[in-house]
Amino acid sequence: MNPGTSEMQFVAALDRVPEMRAVLCLFEGVCSGAADGYARMMRRPAATLLHLGPGLGNALANLHNARKARSPVVNIVGQHTTQHLRYDAPLSSDVEAFARTVSGYVRTVERAADMGKEAAAVIRAAGAWPGQVATLIVPADFSWSEAGQPAACEPACEPNQARVRPPPESIRRAASVLRSGEPAGLLLGGSTLLGAGLEWAGKLAAGTGVKVLANRYSGRFACGGGRFAALRLPYFPEAAEAALAGLKHLILVESQPPVSFFGYPGRRSDLVPEGCSVHVLASIEEDGTEALRALAEECEAASVWAPGSESSQPALPSGAALTPDAIGRALAGLMPEGAILSEEAVSSGEAILRRLSSAPAFDLLPVSGGAIGQGLPVAVGAAVACPDRKVIALEADGSGMYTPQSLWTMAREKLDVIVVILANRRYRILEIEMGRTGAGEISRRANEMIDIGRPDLDWVKLAEGMGVQAARATTADEFIAQFSAAVKQSGPILIEAVLIEAVLIEAVTSK
Amino acid sequence: MNPGTSEMQFVAALDRVPEMRAVLCLFEGVCSGAADGYARMMRRPAATLLHLGPGLGNALANLHNARKARSPVVNIVGQHTTQHLRYDAPLSSDVEAFARTVSGYVRTVERAADMGKEAAAVIRAAGAWPGQVATLIVPADFSWSEAGQPAACEPACEPNQARVRPPPESIRRAASVLRSGEPAGLLLGGSTLLGAGLEWAGKLAAGTGVKVLANRYSGRFACGGGRFAALRLPYFPEAAEAALAGLKHLILVESQPPVSFFGYPGRRSDLVPEGCSVHVLASIEEDGTEALRALAEECEAASVWAPGSESSQPALPSGAALTPDAIGRALAGLMPEGAILSEEAVSSGEAILRRLSSAPAFDLLPVSGGAIGQGLPVAVGAAVACPDRKVIALEADGSGMYTPQSLWTMAREKLDVIVVILANRRYRILEIEMGRTGAGEISRRANEMIDIGRPDLDWVKLAEGMGVQAARATTADEFIAQFSAAVKQSGPILIEAVLIEAVLIEAVTSK
Repeated sequence: MNPGTSEMQFVAALDRVPEMRAVLCLFEGVCSGAADGYARMMRRPAATLLHLGPGLGNALANLHNARKARSPVVNIVGQHTTQHLRYDAPLSSDVEAFARTVSGYVRTVERAADMGKEAAAVIRAAGAWPGQVATLIVPADFSWSEAGQPAACEPACEPNQARVRPPPESIRRAASVLRSGEPAGLLLGGSTLLGAGLEWAGKLAAGTGVKVLANRYSGRFACGGGRFAALRLPYFPEAAEAALAGLKHLILVESQPPVSFFGYPGRRSDLVPEGCSVHVLASIEEDGTEALRALAEECEAASVWAPGSESSQPALPSGAALTPDAIGRALAGLMPEGAILSEEAVSSGEAILRRLSSAPAFDLLPVSGGAIGQGLPVAVGAAVACPDRKVIALEADGSGMYTPQSLWTMAREKLDVIVVILANRRYRILEIEMGRTGAGEISRRANEMIDIGRPDLDWVKLAEGMGVQAARATTADEFIAQFSAAVKQSGPILIEAVLIEAVLIEAVTSK
Repeated sequence: MNPGTSEMQFVAALDRVPEMRAVLCLFEGVCSGAADGYARMMRRPAATLLHLGPGLGNALANLHNARKARSPVVNIVGQHTTQHLRYDAPLSSDVEAFARTVSGYVRTVERAADMGKEAAAVIRAAGAWPGQVATLIVPADFSWSEAGQPAACEPACEPNQARVRPPPESIRRAASVLRSGEPAGLLLGGSTLLGAGLEWAGKLAAGTGVKVLANRYSGRFACGGGRFAALRLPYFPEAAEAALAGLKHLILVESQPPVSFFGYPGRRSDLVPEGCSVHVLASIEEDGTEALRALAEECEAASVWAPGSESSQPALPSGAALTPDAIGRALAGLMPEGAILSEEAVSSGEAILRRLSSAPAFDLLPVSGGAIGQGLPVAVGAAVACPDRKVIALEADGSGMYTPQSLWTMAREKLDVIVVILANRRYRILEIEMGRTGAGEISRRANEMIDIGRPDLDWVKLAEGMGVQAARATTADEFIAQFSAAVKQSGPILIEAVLIEAVLIEAVTSK
């Protein structure tokens, strides 16, 4: 929460409703990203408490990400009193218009007596499978007027609660595709990536030869621990097209058809190969895991033994330069079982994640909507949701600067988070994209808009300024020592990993 | 600018159009607040360059403030390519919906050939008196397609350019009110607070006894230097009502009728006293300065000598505790002539500003729309606009944390800004408001949502982490020494003024 005057009654109520846990954030984008992180882990909504239109405005970028991750999130947004609304006061704005940009459900309470009913309705709306952003706008005077009774709220959706089964025709059609012998792929999304769905997909791969791919922008992936690994479609369209090349059929399971992140000159946005048919095994609203189980039975693959991903861990990168690859090797060897990895490493992410297939079991919370500033707040929310698991935030220095206030909440709440800042001191991804969009060579003044050095950000001081212990690593050995120590302690710690220039260019080229 | 992939062609163009000055900000709210600060000083638009819906989302809070200050601001917002728009890509969103929340003018370019024409139109729209936020959305592919010719753009509005004169009846009606002998007030806003308007108002006060008040939320006030001072209506409605009490007539000059910031239980929002008639001398679109001149002539006050505000400076607060009052006295004595003061000191502001009537001439850029996080970005924009003037940002520790990334841009651009952080380590204003809204005593858990200590923010480290020199003052003498040194040097410097608890309570009570 980041409340203002119009939300003071909610704050006062905290001492009367001990079941509520209130977490203060110093910027609203931390609230909304944390609610997203909580929802990705718990599959039930956390609520933000925000102040009027501009407070909601600050939360929108991470609400956009929550929307794309289909995270259930409830926003409670204060509004001026009903008397005050007719005047053009400084903070007057069209709060509903702010809300509609990201919300699947928007309501303004119309009578104080409806408060309980509306509260239950917004929680239900957020939790309806597959989950959405739902916003309730509350005029301040209803908070100090006699309100109605609390209303019963159905339990929010859990991943294993009863959901709509896909129709038998969908199963039969997919089975006939897999039996045809033509090259086929499964594209998994949503809840199919959380565990059981992956197991069934692994059996289908082993039993039928289907290629198993994952929608890159799903909210959460169960990874490591020798589990079957679906291939996440790469970020750049050339690599994504290569992963899909040759398929005659693509079967969607809780996923939309694949599309490139951006459009580029002379290139299609649609990643489905020409001549490839698209089938839907389970829509986003349907139960894809159940559909995969039924499909495996239909294809007689339900009892096939499916090999997991490689489990031989790479050696720790002792003596190496501090590159994304070295960080990936270090994490693979040092991450504790059951970690949660919030990843917004942008240009360094691919090289790091490539090494983590052999890590102990962990949950990956990746970029979902591409609005920058997601990684640190999502780590906050995941740590609040799962206090018994170690949370690791892999964050780029550029993207970390959109919501650095997250560090203060980590310190305030003593959240068990290790923040790794990948410091290349560039908007490296833009350097790559500038070439791709045909904008040409990066000349002097253009370069200044991509270079976030001069002055260099000092993340150790930034973290300490917000009460978080911090250290800087400039070699792989320093990183190994600092990360090993961080795993053993509890509470937040930040490691600024300063990547070296020569290696960066190599990492970029290798994409 | 805070560009992304869809704006790379704009960045590349910088080296071909040397007339453009590009300033990189690490968060979009800094861009929009800086554009507001630039506009308040120059009365012509600066442009932001923002990335898609979420990038614009991050800019909305400070665009809300710009809207309320009636600052001309142009937003250039990239959109996906026209081909890409039909897909639900991660960053797809309704950019126009984001834009409409704060913009008086929103256009999406429809054909590449219209680029020049649309660019001229958006600048014209922003600059039309009294100024507004105007947003142009540009599909990325139009930036790499053959575009039309640049179009001629009328000069943006300047405060002294020809504007609509109020009709003679307005002047005559106001004059007859002033001649009636009944208690009357002038409420000034907009451009009447910039200099000449104040002089005419001073003559009217001296010649007719009219009380001269100022709309608290106007974008810019000419202050100090012995000028006639209009009474800014206070923040809290009780004090504002006291300032207006007894008036039988209130004459608006480029201002809306006065309204309280928030609505409170059992209290009117409208600040106009019962039985007081409201008259319009000049609407917000009309030329209020010309109207004041004409009114002064009509009332035979045009050559009256008008006394300025007190010019005896208070003594420097040597040996004093570090209170808002002591900071006000120090600033009054140490601020250089022609300074620009960006003020978002929230609970400490009143006590500081009260002391500045005797300061050398300066421009005050106050909170206009109440969206928190304005002060530091506005200081950035004012310093870019006026490199030969010293900019001082008076910023609360709570509000400073919404856009702390401003400090990096100050360092990058070597802007001549002294940032004074008023560190009370509380959302002090909320503590006051909690009582006012009838939410009751601040009990334990409610207090945690208002207390921004635990951990204390270390603004010296935060500033140094972004490349800005910084120091901490805990006594008035330390503050005097640090501020005196800062005035003599060029380039950004931050002083964290740690206010003491006992004095804070006193300052709050005195409101």
